[in-house]
Amino acid sequence: MRKLLIIGIGAGDPDQMTVQAIAALNRADVIFLPDKGQEKAALRHLREAICARFIEKPRRSVTMETPRRAEAGDDYRGVVDDWHARIAASYAALFRLELAEGQTGALLVWGDPALYDSTLRIVERVRAGGLALDWEVIPGISSVQALAARHRIPLNRIGEPVLITTGRKLAEGLPQAPDGVVVMLDGEQAFAKIAPEGLEIFWGAYLGTPDEILIAGPLATVSDEIVRVRAAARERHGWIMDIYLLRRCD
Amino acid sequence: MRKLLIIGIGAGDPDQMTVQAIAALNRADVIFLPDKGQEKAALRHLREAICARFIEKPRRSVTMETPRRAEAGDDYRGVVDDWHARIAASYAALFRLELAEGQTGALLVWGDPALYDSTLRIVERVRAGGLALDWEVIPGISSVQALAARHRIPLNRIGEPVLITTGRKLAEGLPQAPDGVVVMLDGEQAFAKIAPEGLEIFWGAYLGTPDEILIAGPLATVSDEIVRVRAAARERHGWIMDIYLLRRCD
Repeated sequence: MRKLLIIGIGAGDPDQMTVQAIAALNRADVIFLPDKGQEKAALRHLREAICARFIEKPRRSVTMETPRRAEAGDDYRGVVDDWHARIAASYAALFRLELAEGQTGALLVWGDPALYDSTLRIVERVRAGGLALDWEVIPGISSVQALAARHRIPLNRIGEPVLITTGRKLAEGLPQAPDGVVVMLDGEQAFAKIAPEGLEIFWGAYLGTPDEILIAGPLATVSDEIVRVRAAARERHGWIMDIYLLRRCD
Repeated sequence: MRKLLIIGIGAGDPDQMTVQAIAALNRADVIFLPDKGQEKAALRHLREAICARFIEKPRRSVTMETPRRAEAGDDYRGVVDDWHARIAASYAALFRLELAEGQTGALLVWGDPALYDSTLRIVERVRAGGLALDWEVIPGISSVQALAARHRIPLNRIGEPVLITTGRKLAEGLPQAPDGVVVMLDGEQAFAKIAPEGLEIFWGAYLGTPDEILIAGPLATVSDEIVRVRAAARERHGWIMDIYLLRRCD
């Protein structure tokens, strides 16, 4: 039996690492790292900094070649499903080759492995494909939490629900019911395309890193500013990771 | 100016403390702790264990007397609002008395301060009431994440939203849209009162502690078992903290 530790490493600030995540890093025989094409250079450096700071004695690290995803188009789930199948096949081959029976490998996941991350689904597929594999999940601080902490706001109003969704879903329309909506994975600035009346936004990019940007205010007032600042930052850094909370004004 | 650090300390396992939370504990001049009536004995011991393990040199600690909440009845938000006003008045008096100008106090919050916790709202009220006060929020691993990690499940399906809500809200009816619903603060076992067809549940109690219990399966099959196990555990321990994810079966 091979074992994997699927470790949430926080949203960008190495200080968000938990005691549990640090211990898990140090229990692994092999650290599996995404290949350079898949991970933005800045994130790769951050991840390397986390490993350098928290791993007590050098461990073998192995690069995982990750097949590229086809353009999603209309069949988003179908395309993702096919992509995951290819990743699972590639990971299975790698685990057989690089991890001996009885050994433990670590997979490092930005944020929390339970939220908009595919590692758990892929590992499940690897096992379903016939490789005897066990794994453990170590939660990590997600960008949802980093956003709320940096804006010093609660995610929910008293006794009210909070919805965590994607830019793709928001583009289909603002959900009626929930009072607070956290939007992740919004490459299209869906917030700028909905009716802004009565809404406020708390936006953050590069959360927890030295490049962090925070903007908050009535959506009607700050929407253009966020679009502008976001485009400029993306241009400057070559990439962006952002997230926001929309809620009805008091 | 007085400063507060509002520190998420994780969902029950001291190993969920982040590097940032540990550093914050060690930056505080005074640690404010809830009075014994408000916090269950087991949680108090756990919190004391966290302080003992992570605080490097002894710090002054001050007990906060927290006024009791009236029975909520129909006017849940009104009752909570009035209760928060009384807590804020009591905290303001305590901060004036126990924290000198320029000093920093720490408030320890189970889980994440952004999720179903009142500390941020109360501190806002203390400042609105006229006490010059600044604060910083340190996110913590929430029970939502501990639940997902222990069951080794993602919170969302691919590209789908996840709703975090309360037992009170679930009792009003299962929300239509979201595929996954995380339910917190359910003292009434609302899961056992909804139509179970087509739903599966992932339930956890005392997550991250030695008393942790996990049950998962089709809601129709395991609902009675959860009700029974929950009642027995509550009887044995004198208290319970539980949470669950409901989602449509594949």
